[in-house]
Amino acid sequence: MPATRNRRIVLAARPVGEPKDENFRLEEAEIPSPAQGEVLLRTIYLSLDPYQRGRMNAGPSYAPPVEVDQVMQGGAVSEVVESKVDHLGPGDLVVGYTGWQEFSVASGKVLQRVEPARAPISTALGVLGMPGMTAYTGLLNIGRPKPGETVVVSSAAGAVGSAVGQIAKVLGCRAVGIAGGPDKCNFVVNELGFDACVDYRRGGFPVELKKSCPKGIDVYFENVGGRVFEAVIPLMNPFGRVPVCGLIAQYNATGLSSGPDRVPLVMSAVLVKRLTFRGFIVFDFHEQQPEFERDMSQWLREGKVKYREDVVEGLENAVAAFKRLFTGQNFGKLLVRVGPEPRGQ
Amino acid sequence: MPATRNRRIVLAARPVGEPKDENFRLEEAEIPSPAQGEVLLRTIYLSLDPYQRGRMNAGPSYAPPVEVDQVMQGGAVSEVVESKVDHLGPGDLVVGYTGWQEFSVASGKVLQRVEPARAPISTALGVLGMPGMTAYTGLLNIGRPKPGETVVVSSAAGAVGSAVGQIAKVLGCRAVGIAGGPDKCNFVVNELGFDACVDYRRGGFPVELKKSCPKGIDVYFENVGGRVFEAVIPLMNPFGRVPVCGLIAQYNATGLSSGPDRVPLVMSAVLVKRLTFRGFIVFDFHEQQPEFERDMSQWLREGKVKYREDVVEGLENAVAAFKRLFTGQNFGKLLVRVGPEPRGQ
Repeated sequence: MPATRNRRIVLAARPVGEPKDENFRLEEAEIPSPAQGEVLLRTIYLSLDPYQRGRMNAGPSYAPPVEVDQVMQGGAVSEVVESKVDHLGPGDLVVGYTGWQEFSVASGKVLQRVEPARAPISTALGVLGMPGMTAYTGLLNIGRPKPGETVVVSSAAGAVGSAVGQIAKVLGCRAVGIAGGPDKCNFVVNELGFDACVDYRRGGFPVELKKSCPKGIDVYFENVGGRVFEAVIPLMNPFGRVPVCGLIAQYNATGLSSGPDRVPLVMSAVLVKRLTFRGFIVFDFHEQQPEFERDMSQWLREGKVKYREDVVEGLENAVAAFKRLFTGQNFGKLLVRVGPEPRGQ
Repeated sequence: MPATRNRRIVLAARPVGEPKDENFRLEEAEIPSPAQGEVLLRTIYLSLDPYQRGRMNAGPSYAPPVEVDQVMQGGAVSEVVESKVDHLGPGDLVVGYTGWQEFSVASGKVLQRVEPARAPISTALGVLGMPGMTAYTGLLNIGRPKPGETVVVSSAAGAVGSAVGQIAKVLGCRAVGIAGGPDKCNFVVNELGFDACVDYRRGGFPVELKKSCPKGIDVYFENVGGRVFEAVIPLMNPFGRVPVCGLIAQYNATGLSSGPDRVPLVMSAVLVKRLTFRGFIVFDFHEQQPEFERDMSQWLREGKVKYREDVVEGLENAVAAFKRLFTGQNFGKLLVRVGPEPRGQ
């Protein structure tokens, strides 16, 4: 029996610090109807990503915030239920920023088709989607690694970090991951093929990191900030590059930590070592989508890039899953299965 | 009567914090003799520059430190006294890193000829020399300003900063200087032609800076660090560029200042605004010397770039003059006239 109501998660109140259950509300609403140029979509996989924490704040960022009582933003793979555009029909699969909900209406112009024959459809939210392209564009455009150089990436077991290190290996670099806990570190080295992975939770982390980077660090792909960043900077080589992709360690901060003020240390390193820091988001390189899809699909087929997913069942579990991102309890690309995949695929 | 002894200033002890008189020693030595491939030089103008403070420290930097009891490093314009190379003869003028001394011996390979017909020979240490080329290469390669953008530069009345703002004007940008005191600010606006200049020593500096940059800041050419940097970062526009050329406010620091730790604020700005920070020194762009000389000579001839020099008489006054760099008491490119210019020039 087809659903008659749309379940969705709205932002009930802006979180202060760590997001809590009371910051969200699961509610029911009418299933919306598509206007001309729009489609009605049924959500299959919802993507949970660290950037969504930023959208919960009121302050200016690179995208407008989610308003209170609005549906939480997020990317999803969906099936077309009803179409009022020419190029999409019922049963087609698409990916787009359609939010934390079971049904959505979207303009046909902002959706991309997902080809189930190419790869599991969930990869459109992971290795073949935004996180994979973030890794690819940030590493190639800003990191610019040369064969033989050392590339270090934090959150190395995560959706972006795992792709960064594997692409670095494809390019002939030494890939060193930073991750939390022995299971993730084992996975990063033994499954993904990084040269080394250092557990930032263990004592002596800065010393271990230095041992794993005997020739220093040429590229640091920054996903976390905080004390991982502090340990990396002294190891950077002259002319090193730091793509700044994320700072998950500080997203929930409610103020600055006590001193000393380390800005002069960081800026001295930038000057003396002639480092480049550059912040980016994947949309800055949107014109590179074709190259990304070509290269990443090929590396997947050849087994040069692998991925791991952490799939949670049911929209009602999205908030609890989202909170796990900030404690490092997820292991792989975090997805919510909101509804079943179409039969026969 | 020709001199028979060489007066020189050596590093007597490494400064801790602000350089003091006792860190240096004026001493006399034999005038050295050139070997085959070398020339004996008589120093005319010695250049005093902030980077020389870094050479007094033992720690690693982009150049080896001056050793204790060694002659202080520095660029100078000199006259050839005796030559054992084919391409230079007595009376020729050259520029090179020949140190804080009245006479020096140098390989003919590390000297560049100075043409007195082109411009006053002292400019080979300023607007047509290292500081001018630092401004040119840092602004063009890293700042990459587009017409109509706002370029802010600190130490705007100094050798590098004054060139940065004037080049920005040539390129069709809004140029805003930051300098210490009303005299320098007046000079920057009324003599150099910047659109505005803000006095960092006055109360309300961050507010005044914001008023002077109504469209935000696209390029910040960093010469100072510290609280000037702190005031600039919130005003940076998305995709802004920060060439990091110098950090004079922190060169004499003996430790970190008390907190809070502002690194998370800076890194958030880098990420959310997609800023680029890049440290550099002029030698990183040495291959651009011909373009620099062509463009800067032309701008000088056309009156589009002006310069100001602050000339101190006598090698014995070099240490006192050097200390003034760190209190902002110099006004223009700081030079020591170590000996007279050749007659007839």
